[in-house]
Amino acid sequence: MGIIVQKFGGTSVGSVEKIFNVANKVIGEIKKNHKVIVVVSAMSGETDKLIKLAYEVKDNCVEDREYDTIISTGEQVTTGLLALALKKLGYKAKSFLGFQIPIKSDSTYSKARIIQIDSENLKKALQENDALVVAGFQGIDETGSITTLGRGGSDTTAVAIAAAINADICDIYTDVDGVYTTDPNICRNAKKMEKICYEEMLEFASLGAKVLQLRSVEFAQKYNVKLQVRSSFNDNLGTIVCKEEEKMESPLITGVAYDKNQAKISILKVADKPGVAAKIFSTIAENNISVDMIIQNISEEDKTTDITFTVSKTDYLKALEISKKLATDINAKNVIGDTNISKISIIGVGMKSHYGIASKMFQLLADENINIQMISTSEIKISCVVQEKYGELAVRILHDGFELGK
Amino acid sequence: MGIIVQKFGGTSVGSVEKIFNVANKVIGEIKKNHKVIVVVSAMSGETDKLIKLAYEVKDNCVEDREYDTIISTGEQVTTGLLALALKKLGYKAKSFLGFQIPIKSDSTYSKARIIQIDSENLKKALQENDALVVAGFQGIDETGSITTLGRGGSDTTAVAIAAAINADICDIYTDVDGVYTTDPNICRNAKKMEKICYEEMLEFASLGAKVLQLRSVEFAQKYNVKLQVRSSFNDNLGTIVCKEEEKMESPLITGVAYDKNQAKISILKVADKPGVAAKIFSTIAENNISVDMIIQNISEEDKTTDITFTVSKTDYLKALEISKKLATDINAKNVIGDTNISKISIIGVGMKSHYGIASKMFQLLADENINIQMISTSEIKISCVVQEKYGELAVRILHDGFELGK
Repeated sequence: MGIIVQKFGGTSVGSVEKIFNVANKVIGEIKKNHKVIVVVSAMSGETDKLIKLAYEVKDNCVEDREYDTIISTGEQVTTGLLALALKKLGYKAKSFLGFQIPIKSDSTYSKARIIQIDSENLKKALQENDALVVAGFQGIDETGSITTLGRGGSDTTAVAIAAAINADICDIYTDVDGVYTTDPNICRNAKKMEKICYEEMLEFASLGAKVLQLRSVEFAQKYNVKLQVRSSFNDNLGTIVCKEEEKMESPLITGVAYDKNQAKISILKVADKPGVAAKIFSTIAENNISVDMIIQNISEEDKTTDITFTVSKTDYLKALEISKKLATDINAKNVIGDTNISKISIIGVGMKSHYGIASKMFQLLADENINIQMISTSEIKISCVVQEKYGELAVRILHDGFELGK
Repeated sequence: MGIIVQKFGGTSVGSVEKIFNVANKVIGEIKKNHKVIVVVSAMSGETDKLIKLAYEVKDNCVEDREYDTIISTGEQVTTGLLALALKKLGYKAKSFLGFQIPIKSDSTYSKARIIQIDSENLKKALQENDALVVAGFQGIDETGSITTLGRGGSDTTAVAIAAAINADICDIYTDVDGVYTTDPNICRNAKKMEKICYEEMLEFASLGAKVLQLRSVEFAQKYNVKLQVRSSFNDNLGTIVCKEEEKMESPLITGVAYDKNQAKISILKVADKPGVAAKIFSTIAENNISVDMIIQNISEEDKTTDITFTVSKTDYLKALEISKKLATDINAKNVIGDTNISKISIIGVGMKSHYGIASKMFQLLADENINIQMISTSEIKISCVVQEKYGELAVRILHDGFELGK
């Protein structure tokens, strides 16, 4: 007998019928003699409706405690409904809101961070019930105000609860079967992974494979919570996210991630002296633009260099305008931009201890005459920017070249 | 500078525009240098929507703690929205949910009773803010579960808060200007009362004048909270509900109440011996039917008597059926029923110390040839049941006869 934490998102609880579907998933684990803590989001569309209402009353209210008081009600409703459904089906269940556990957070309203979870109330209730239903996305700060954890925060709630209660596993139910070696829409032979380690999952999450919220993976890694990404629509085993050493086999490359939502900007002939890069990127950060890759090569003979960076396509025009102003300020020669790019990354903890992975990647692309515009590497990832039209081809070439479909 | 508690119902906060209307009512008092605590209901229709959702998941869930968790969210949303609106208009405001004050209640879910309100948090927050916004209808029990106070519970929240904080007045905003001497739709010269005492208001509330929830008036009387019933749609003074001694003038009769939603049932030739009435009315109570008037006259020579009682028209058929079964059990002769009745009551604390009020009432009705079918009296009220078609006429005759329109 173990303790299982389950998490269901908004589409999984979007109607009374779907709530009963979730209840049956919970009961499936109870019948295997497990105790279940199930974390739920608001019914799909509800949180957006509440946000709209709040904005109709006051613009820019996201940093206001009242905003969190309002938008946390969606989870409160589904939590109660799922507990009722479990009772209706003959099981003992009890709902918990953030303040009832309590899930203590800081006071950064609308994107609060969990500080601590007292597990005593949950542990006691778990002895008296078959399942507990916990409202995702919400906490309470030290002043007793309700807080919310930001978009996708229910994933984080689930992982944090699993850590606090020392659960055997935290099952994240989604609309996909698990984590794939690459996007199955691009590569028909993409394979569902059995296991992936936290570091790799973090790279996948940050590279646009929107399966798990980035913060929840960080949290799972920090507290060593075993995650499983699995489907709400079947009983198939999903993908386990765990520590590196728990992976029985460590292939060199785990998967290929693909991001076509990037644009690049180059500031040309920047004086190569201390403080220039800091000025550029602090100005961009002040405008709430998030920068992904940054490339600066060694200086040329005239003591200038080119700085290139990528931003998301939605921030491109704003970033370009800022860059042009900056270029004048710092006496750079010119600014050029390009939205016509794709970023392809290969990910795998195995590459840490192997040479030749990068050169193999570059060769595979070269064999197909795909020109590489930018390169960026980390210990477990190599990313290349190529012309947009070659993006999907590059994914297939790398997926096949590293034999991920086998 | 005083402390004012205001309460606004669902229709007063039914849209963003109306919420700003309420905010302006609050600001009106702030500008007079008062501190304001405003209690709000859910947006009209929201609570019904949530109840429907809960019932779709589980029938008869009203006694379940999850039911209260679900249906209390409507007030949570309006509380946050009104606080945002006040901030938007430049004032310092903060919302409070039941658990944040806390408003401690018993655990009778869906109709919990307030046990105690800690006023420390409110008092502290009142020093730091222009207004506090409190969620009506909700409390928290000793296990930390959310409770709700039953239909109209926001009135009770407002009165309880006013008592706890020792407010100068508790203004209940409604869609009418105040409490009238009788229904203005029946008597064109019905007058808005300036003051009415708790005892009289209780009679009005229980006799079908749906201005204030009965429990809130009992609460106000118990803790001596001065109430004002007034309109959300204008700035007119409303009707003050207060202690008897505070009424400057005590007219004999304060008003005429009218209830056409009653039906009467008579069980004829009931053996006049101990325990028979108890058997009848305990059986009816077990069927969740509420009885209003009960009349039993002295026994006839054959040692039998007739027992007549009134119930609401919606309970009539069920009550009649039960009565017929009972009649067989207790060897009564027959059961007759009549839905064709109206109850007219005159109310006034003044009648406690005056003779002749009842005979004047009966004479006024007799002068118009209106036959009285049943009579019931309390210290401050005389009720007569007459044929339904004479109901409105009777109201006008009594209203004029006791000179209430002057």
